[in-house]
Amino acid sequence: MSARAGCLETGLAVVGAGYWGPNLVRTALATPALRLEWLCDLDERRARAVLGRYATVGVTTSYDRVLSDPAVQAISIATPAVTHYDLVRAALEAGKHVLVEKPLTSSAAEAEKLVALAHDAGLVLMCDHTYCYTPAVRRIRELISGGEVGEVQFVDSIRVNLGIVQADVDVLWDLAPHDLSILDFVLPANVAPVAVAAHTSDPVGAGRACLAHLSVWLSTGALAHVHVNWLSPTKIRTTVIGGSRRTIVWDDMNPPARLAVHDRGVDRAPLDPVTPDERRHALMNYRIGDICIPALPEEEALMSVMAEFASAIAEQRTPLTDGAAGLRVLNVLEAASASADRGGDRVQVQARRSGD
Amino acid sequence: MSARAGCLETGLAVVGAGYWGPNLVRTALATPALRLEWLCDLDERRARAVLGRYATVGVTTSYDRVLSDPAVQAISIATPAVTHYDLVRAALEAGKHVLVEKPLTSSAAEAEKLVALAHDAGLVLMCDHTYCYTPAVRRIRELISGGEVGEVQFVDSIRVNLGIVQADVDVLWDLAPHDLSILDFVLPANVAPVAVAAHTSDPVGAGRACLAHLSVWLSTGALAHVHVNWLSPTKIRTTVIGGSRRTIVWDDMNPPARLAVHDRGVDRAPLDPVTPDERRHALMNYRIGDICIPALPEEEALMSVMAEFASAIAEQRTPLTDGAAGLRVLNVLEAASASADRGGDRVQVQARRSGD
Amino acid sequence: MSARAGCLETGLAVVGAGYWGPNLVRTALATPALRLEWLCDLDERRARAVLGRYATVGVTTSYDRVLSDPAVQAISIATPAVTHYDLVRAALEAGKHVLVEKPLTSSAAEAEKLVALAHDAGLVLMCDHTYCYTPAVRRIRELISGGEVGEVQFVDSIRVNLGIVQADVDVLWDLAPHDLSILDFVLPANVAPVAVAAHTSDPVGAGRACLAHLSVWLSTGALAHVHVNWLSPTKIRTTVIGGSRRTIVWDDMNPPARLAVHDRGVDRAPLDPVTPDERRHALMNYRIGDICIPALPEEEALMSVMAEFASAIAEQRTPLTDGAAGLRVLNVLEAASASADRGGDRVQVQARRSGD
Amino acid sequence: MSARAGCLETGLAVVGAGYWGPNLVRTALATPALRLEWLCDLDERRARAVLGRYATVGVTTSYDRVLSDPAVQAISIATPAVTHYDLVRAALEAGKHVLVEKPLTSSAAEAEKLVALAHDAGLVLMCDHTYCYTPAVRRIRELISGGEVGEVQFVDSIRVNLGIVQADVDVLWDLAPHDLSILDFVLPANVAPVAVAAHTSDPVGAGRACLAHLSVWLSTGALAHVHVNWLSPTKIRTTVIGGSRRTIVWDDMNPPARLAVHDRGVDRAPLDPVTPDERRHALMNYRIGDICIPALPEEEALMSVMAEFASAIAEQRTPLTDGAAGLRVLNVLEAASASADRGGDRVQVQARRSGD
Repeated sequence: MSARAGCLETGLAVVGAGYWGPNLVRTALATPALRLEWLCDLDERRARAVLGRYATVGVTTSYDRVLSDPAVQAISIATPAVTHYDLVRAALEAGKHVLVEKPLTSSAAEAEKLVALAHDAGLVLMCDHTYCYTPAVRRIRELISGGEVGEVQFVDSIRVNLGIVQADVDVLWDLAPHDLSILDFVLPANVAPVAVAAHTSDPVGAGRACLAHLSVWLSTGALAHVHVNWLSPTKIRTTVIGGSRRTIVWDDMNPPARLAVHDRGVDRAPLDPVTPDERRHALMNYRIGDICIPALPEEEALMSVMAEFASAIAEQRTPLTDGAAGLRVLNVLEAASASADRGGDRVQVQARRSGD
Repeated sequence: MSARAGCLETGLAVVGAGYWGPNLVRTALATPALRLEWLCDLDERRARAVLGRYATVGVTTSYDRVLSDPAVQAISIATPAVTHYDLVRAALEAGKHVLVEKPLTSSAAEAEKLVALAHDAGLVLMCDHTYCYTPAVRRIRELISGGEVGEVQFVDSIRVNLGIVQADVDVLWDLAPHDLSILDFVLPANVAPVAVAAHTSDPVGAGRACLAHLSVWLSTGALAHVHVNWLSPTKIRTTVIGGSRRTIVWDDMNPPARLAVHDRGVDRAPLDPVTPDERRHALMNYRIGDICIPALPEEEALMSVMAEFASAIAEQRTPLTDGAAGLRVLNVLEAASASADRGGDRVQVQARRSGD
Repeated sequence: MSARAGCLETGLAVVGAGYWGPNLVRTALATPALRLEWLCDLDERRARAVLGRYATVGVTTSYDRVLSDPAVQAISIATPAVTHYDLVRAALEAGKHVLVEKPLTSSAAEAEKLVALAHDAGLVLMCDHTYCYTPAVRRIRELISGGEVGEVQFVDSIRVNLGIVQADVDVLWDLAPHDLSILDFVLPANVAPVAVAAHTSDPVGAGRACLAHLSVWLSTGALAHVHVNWLSPTKIRTTVIGGSRRTIVWDDMNPPARLAVHDRGVDRAPLDPVTPDERRHALMNYRIGDICIPALPEEEALMSVMAEFASAIAEQRTPLTDGAAGLRVLNVLEAASASADRGGDRVQVQARRSGD
Repeated sequence: MSARAGCLETGLAVVGAGYWGPNLVRTALATPALRLEWLCDLDERRARAVLGRYATVGVTTSYDRVLSDPAVQAISIATPAVTHYDLVRAALEAGKHVLVEKPLTSSAAEAEKLVALAHDAGLVLMCDHTYCYTPAVRRIRELISGGEVGEVQFVDSIRVNLGIVQADVDVLWDLAPHDLSILDFVLPANVAPVAVAAHTSDPVGAGRACLAHLSVWLSTGALAHVHVNWLSPTKIRTTVIGGSRRTIVWDDMNPPARLAVHDRGVDRAPLDPVTPDERRHALMNYRIGDICIPALPEEEALMSVMAEFASAIAEQRTPLTDGAAGLRVLNVLEAASASADRGGDRVQVQARRSGD
């Protein structure tokens, strides 16, 4: 490859050809700024099946071969979470930029080390927090940062469906990273989770929690709640963000109206008095205005993830969802697991140094 | 009125002409087995406005006058919860049957006394757990008792809308009685709540909780969850009951398909092995079958409440939702309030003697 | 009744205690400006059942008695359509104002006579085009008259459900009056139906059309279409009004979002040329903007009908939906029936003198 | 290629890299029984962009080169309809099996010739009536052929959205082929369209019909109706098939409940008599039973199209949607265009010999 092309393209290897890997391959193939060099998996046959017989992309079972290939500047990792730490560390140590599936690692302590390693090496460490790249979540972030929502009063996030009981993680670690990374992405920078309580259940004897209710207290005092469930017969992906000025309802299963912005306001009003006692109370006055359903482009989020990864590498900058974001999610997840282990006690979220 | 007519009809007084009273009046007027004698309210003008200028029903501000009227055999009470205990006790002591709005009283201790009083006097004490009389909830009860659902694995109940911040109660005491009374009604008799944890929030400065997440552990180990919220811009009334054989989704805001019975089953299956480590794990196998939406009559639940009240009086029997049911709901509510006061700690539900 | 009260109240008789009559009675009882004097029906028992045993309203089987009662200034008629002409004429001749169910009469010729009769007598003749009084339809009218919709490009109205096969009318005369009266109400005054074609079917052997597709050409050249069907298993009441600036979707079965205003525009744009041939064509450019769901009050339309009737009488003015509106609807209905009789031929709409 | 591989694989060329061609390429690449040899388009750059830089598939602008390649046994054509006749004829004359986009050709006369040509040459001529390969439509066909629906009483098909105003065809020829091919596929073999009437409109000045209402009379006397519209702000793809025993509602925009089977029946019943006149009428009795939402696999229809094409070639048999099906659709389309040209007159459908 010529030097000039090297300025424009980043050589990429995808590691892991399981559930998510094929999506990384497909979107990498369609991203002009990336040049897919390798698909690496322990199971060569599976990797070949993902690529099909027409693609001119290398297949290998050797991670070392990938890391030692000078045509590879970046690695995208979609393996089980428990393997992330070793794979990411090796990639960073080999001087490769890394895009890694959520959760970043199996523990916040490991994540902290990777963040530091990437920082010191001047490499991009990006978390594939895919939902943050959907047009809906980007718009939510704008609506909050632009002041249209006002102060966030509550968050209610539901992510349930008849999902696969994972072998290596419980439902909290499988699904809640989506909700927590979205929360991290859309909330103002000065608002953060400070404590959590998690109630989990395994009613089918799967050996790990299959449903969880997670309460997350924010630094503002507001309460966010996340319900994740592998056993629901219906698929629901809804997040409500209640604000002092407007309330956002994001229903990802309703493409014609994914986002609805409710013009809603609350102020104090005197009670219509019924009894003398009630006259002493002041009540709230509700304003119910129009609902706006903003037009959103129908873009595939993972295409934007790939584009952001390539851009961050080319521009030598921090990506939108960097390792520090992945670490913040892990801080909440670890507190949630600790709470679940203690029967639902309220547990403080560790505020680890995230380098940013 | 002749003695013979007395056998067929029950003379009724409605007490309270506020939010719910007009509905009691309207349905009582339309119930042949009831003869509405009085509408009693502290505010005579409000009571007259409820009845309109055409109705031949007495209006009074004197509860004593109602209690001393021999034409009145039954009282239906729709006043603030804090007044229930005194009003119900006086009615029972005057030998009147009583139908009372939820919650039965402000405390389980009071409710216990009323249940005992009614029992000793041989009078009907019925709670207006209106939702238990909807065709949907009746069908859910049948589906569970008939074994079609199998073992209840989880319950998720959401009751949110832009509601009125009540002057006398928080959102838990205002809305959760609906969900808890439904749970009490549909679960098998040998399954009961044993512990609760409640996380509440008042983000608008109303002086009381405006939203609450309530986790309820059942005696089987299953986890039920109730989300009640006065601040939601959208109205959601959905209850999912996950069972080992089928899962019920009740969406009360969707009249054409209020009830959906999902033919769903889970059993163990070997994992498609990816790595040697994963081979050690066994995973679940999901069966996704048809969904059945049973045809339900469109009957008004409160008409059925009135009919059940009249029948229980005429047949001298315990109504479907008796004082004991109201007491069981209060036992959970009190534990929920205690949990909320302690920041969400898990609190045992008192198993008070409920007389049944 | 004193003379002064007479200035404020109108004495009303409701005629017909069948399907719709009870709604007229209920709303009349709740309308302060009306004083319900009589419910008149050939079946006295049915009339008494509608009123219940508490109401102080007269019941009679004698229409003459109602007409001769000086306390009655107005008549509301809810009898089979075939009886409307005689009943309305008699009422007008007795000096009574009249509110009559749709369709105004069984033929446009009869309607023309009634309109003239009311006009000459200075009496209110109002059609109960109920839907025109819903907040949704009132808003649609405003959106069109205010220019927000632009030029109306097409209308598509669907009114289907598992309905009762009527004994006296086919589905066109039973259901299409709703759609046609709405169209008459919301379209600008200078736009009118000029021709229709109706395709009907009676697949269940009911002896009359049970479903119909009605194409209505407007004076602007735009095409409106109405689908009415008694045999649909699902209830659909949707009207789409496509405009050059915005398009309105009214879904009456979706209370949280009955009205959606789509910001949509079309203009010409060059085709992305694929073949030389295609380069010769110019294509359209579509703009897809936000959707606005306006907040609408949840008012019962029939209450507004009653209020409008009372106001028109008190103010001696033409009501919003007068006899002329009823006549215009009949002009289209008659043309539709003529088209159906001729196998779907396009039939011109008679432009009868409607007095306005 | 070896003779043995020839038994297993069919060499395919895709012609046309415009709107639909990329989908044919993608699914062909993923179909083991097909080996994609060429993508042919007049615009080489566009063809290369569709394939991307990794695919080992030939690109050519020469149709002759494709036809003369012995490794190509089959051609899949996705070019403008006006070019179909020449391209398909040349392919058949070159001994290639053909899969062609809808509509088969621009006229029934041309289609008739192609059907005969393919028949005489013993080659597969298949129409890509994609919707017929969806799990929903396959199930509808089974429900009708299995007798569960009973006699088809009416059909109502809506296919509207903000679509592209095509340069070469009006909305009837663009969208109605979908509905007509579905109708052809699901109706019993002895039921066929006998007459049509089409009302069309071009309210945006596009130079061709942008919306159309098409009434189709079936040989049983039942009425089917198709509404196609390029100007609708909302996307609706719903087909209702009313039967004497059950009614099917297919809502393709509602993945969790695409198909709903309503247990509905009608029989005669005496009218609840209101007036003596009405006593002479007999009315219908409605039975409203449960709704069943069958579990359907989420398979991509075009993958099934490709598999059927490959199977029909390998098994030397007529495909499910053969040229004769395409011809039957064209017979109705031509009658519809003739009707539209005559202002909506009812036009008989030509029953051309379709070879089957």
